[in-house]
Amino acid sequence: MELNIALLAGDGIGPEVIDQAVKVCDAVAKKYNHQINWTSALTGAAAIDAVGEPYPDETHEICVNADAVLFGAIGHPRFDNDPSAKVRPEQGLLKMRQKLGLFANVRPTFTFPSLIDKSPLKQERIEGTDLVFLRELTSGIYFGKRGREDNGDTAYDTCTYTREEVKRLAKKGFEMAMTRGKKLCCVDKANVLESSRLWRETVQAMEKEYPEVEVSYEFVDAVAMRLVQWPNSYDVLITENLFGDILTDEASVISGSMGLMPSASLGEKTALFEPIHGSYPQAAGKDIANPLATVLSAAMMFETAFGLNEEAQSIRDVVDKSLNEGVVTEDLAGDQKAYKTSEVGDWLTQNI
Amino acid sequence: MELNIALLAGDGIGPEVIDQAVKVCDAVAKKYNHQINWTSALTGAAAIDAVGEPYPDETHEICVNADAVLFGAIGHPRFDNDPSAKVRPEQGLLKMRQKLGLFANVRPTFTFPSLIDKSPLKQERIEGTDLVFLRELTSGIYFGKRGREDNGDTAYDTCTYTREEVKRLAKKGFEMAMTRGKKLCCVDKANVLESSRLWRETVQAMEKEYPEVEVSYEFVDAVAMRLVQWPNSYDVLITENLFGDILTDEASVISGSMGLMPSASLGEKTALFEPIHGSYPQAAGKDIANPLATVLSAAMMFETAFGLNEEAQSIRDVVDKSLNEGVVTEDLAGDQKAYKTSEVGDWLTQNI
Ligand SMILES: CC(C)[C@H](C(=O)O)[C@@H](O)C(=O)O
Ligand SMILES: CC(C)[C@H](C(=O)O)[C@@H](O)C(=O)O
Repeated sequence: MELNIALLAGDGIGPEVIDQAVKVCDAVAKKYNHQINWTSALTGAAAIDAVGEPYPDETHEICVNADAVLFGAIGHPRFDNDPSAKVRPEQGLLKMRQKLGLFANVRPTFTFPSLIDKSPLKQERIEGTDLVFLRELTSGIYFGKRGREDNGDTAYDTCTYTREEVKRLAKKGFEMAMTRGKKLCCVDKANVLESSRLWRETVQAMEKEYPEVEVSYEFVDAVAMRLVQWPNSYDVLITENLFGDILTDEASVISGSMGLMPSASLGEKTALFEPIHGSYPQAAGKDIANPLATVLSAAMMFETAFGLNEEAQSIRDVVDKSLNEGVVTEDLAGDQKAYKTSEVGDWLTQNI
Repeated sequence: MELNIALLAGDGIGPEVIDQAVKVCDAVAKKYNHQINWTSALTGAAAIDAVGEPYPDETHEICVNADAVLFGAIGHPRFDNDPSAKVRPEQGLLKMRQKLGLFANVRPTFTFPSLIDKSPLKQERIEGTDLVFLRELTSGIYFGKRGREDNGDTAYDTCTYTREEVKRLAKKGFEMAMTRGKKLCCVDKANVLESSRLWRETVQAMEKEYPEVEVSYEFVDAVAMRLVQWPNSYDVLITENLFGDILTDEASVISGSMGLMPSASLGEKTALFEPIHGSYPQAAGKDIANPLATVLSAAMMFETAFGLNEEAQSIRDVVDKSLNEGVVTEDLAGDQKAYKTSEVGDWLTQNI
C-alpha cells in the first residue's frame, strides 16, 4: 500500500520526537511491504519565523493532499506572556483544525502496568482506567465572535453550537462506545448554558438509535471531580471544545503515562495524529524527550487512517517491550539508565 | 455583639446540616456573650414548591438586611434531566449571587492530617496542600446574553468581562496572598479568549502595587493538570466564573476532605457562607450527612463577616477534636462507629 503522510514537526521537542516516529514507521512499512511518502511542512513558531504565518497555505495544501497528517507540537514561550503579540503559534493550530475540518479530537487515557506507580493517584483508584474523550474541536468558544468594547475595557467571547455540530461528534461517540464498553457520558453545563442544553437534547434524541449504549449526562464540574476519584468508572466521554481542553488535560496526568498518550483529530476527510504532551520547550534540542507518545500516535494512524491493525499492533508491542526492558528516556528511567530520545527511537526501529 | 444572620437551609441535606451549624453558633454566642438573631428564608426547590420561585423577593429582603447569610445547599434531581424545565433551583442560586453582588467566591482546599488517607492522591502529593481559589461569581458566561437561533438549531452563550470586574476580584486575590504565602496564580485561557487577555493584562497592571507578591499566569488546562500533580505548589489562585466552577470542584476532591470544605461568597456589602458539597439528595432526611463543612463555614463567617477570630478558632478546634476522637458521620467513620448528623452536632455544641 502507498501511504502519503504529511509531516508537521512544529516547535520545541516536536522535531526530535517526530524523527523517531518516522524511523519506526519506515521500519513497519519495510516489514509489511508498504511505501510511505513523507512530505514535510512548516507550522507553529517555526513557520512564523520562516514565513510570518503559523499555518501557511503551502502547509495546508500538503495536508489536504495527504492521506494522513503526523504532527509534533506547537507553541513557544516567547509568545506566552505577551498578550499583545499579533501572530501566535496557537493560531496556526486553530486555523489548521478549522481548515482541515478536524472536528473530533480523540484522546484516550489508559495505564501501562509498568508505569502505574508514576500516577499521582493511589493504585486502587487508577487501576483499570481505560477511557477515551471525544472533544469537539472546530466550534464553540474557540471559534465564536470575540472582541473588545468601551475602549478596550470590556472583552467578550461567544460560544456557539449548531445541532449538526453536536450530532456529528455525538455520532462518533456512540459508534466508539459500541466498539468498547458501551457507556457514553455526555459532559455539559446544561444547568447554566444554552449551548449545553442543545448538546443534551441532541444527544438525548440520538439515544434510541443506539439502544445498547448506556448514556449518562454529567455536569462538567462533577466530571472534573470524578476523573480524580474514580477514573475507571468511565468509558467514552463526549464534550464541547473548551470543556474538552480542560478535562482531557486533567485526564492525561492521572494515568502516570502522560508522556505516552497519543491522540487523533478526525475530520470528514483528513485525520491528524499527535502526541498530547505539547512542545516542552525546556527540553528542546537536548535529545532527552520521550518519543513514545508520538510513536503511539503513529500506531493510531496506521489503525485509524489506513485500517492497518496488524501494523499498529506491531508498534504497540515494541513500545510495551521497550517499557518492560527499561529502554526509556529519563522521565521514566528512575534510578535506571536513561536512554536518549534517538536511542529509544533506534531501539524501537531495530525491534519492529 | 448582636449578629443578624439570614438562614437559608435550601434543599436536600441543607436543612439537616444547617441545624447543626445553628446549634454550634448558638453555643459559641453563649460562651462569648453575643446575641444571634436568626431569620430563616426559603430558597431552591423548597422555594419553588412553596412560592414558585427559587429566590423569592422576601428572601432577598431578608438577606440584604442581614449582617451575613448562612446557606445550606440547593438543587434537586427532579430538575436535572429535564432541559425544558422553566424554573430551576440553580436559577435561584445565580439570581441570589447577582442580586447580592457576591462577586468573590472563596474556596480553600486544605488537608486534615487525620483524613489524608482518604485522598485519592498519594500522600506525598497531597501533603502540605493549602491553597485557596477566588472565583469570580457574578459575571462571565454565567450572566452573558444567551439564546437560540435558526428555529432552535443554534444555541449561543456569551462570556463578557469588564476591567473593573477583573480588578475588584484580583484586588481581593492580591490582598489574600499578602496574608498567606504571597503567591498569586492568575488562571486563564489567554492563548484563545479575548476575555482572558483582559484578565491577564489587568492583573499584570496591578502587579506593581503588590511588589511582594509573586504572580504567575497559567492556562486553565495546565492548572487542571497541576492541581492533580502538585497541588501543594499553589497558594492563592484567581479565576473567572466558569473556570472557577470546574477547578474548585476538582480541587475539592483532592484533599480527601471534600465533605469538610467551607466557602464564602463576598460582595461589597453582603457575605454568604456555605459548605461546598451541595444538596446530596440521596442522603436527605436520613440524619447521615456530614455537618462539618457547614460548621466550618460558620467559622469562616465569624472570622470574615464579624472579625471574631477567637470565636472562629473555637469552632475549628472543636471540629479538630471531633475528628481526632472519631465523632464523625459514616462517610469518615471507616470501621469505627458512625455517628448521626445530629449526634455530631450535639457533641460539637457540648464541647464548644
Ligand atoms: C494551544 C491551545 C490553543 C490548545 C487548545 O486549547 O486547544 C491546546 O491546549 C490543546 O489542547 O491542543
Ligand atoms: C449549581 C450551579 C449553577 C453552580 C455553579 O455552576 O456555579 C454550582 O456548580 C456551584 O459551583 O456553586
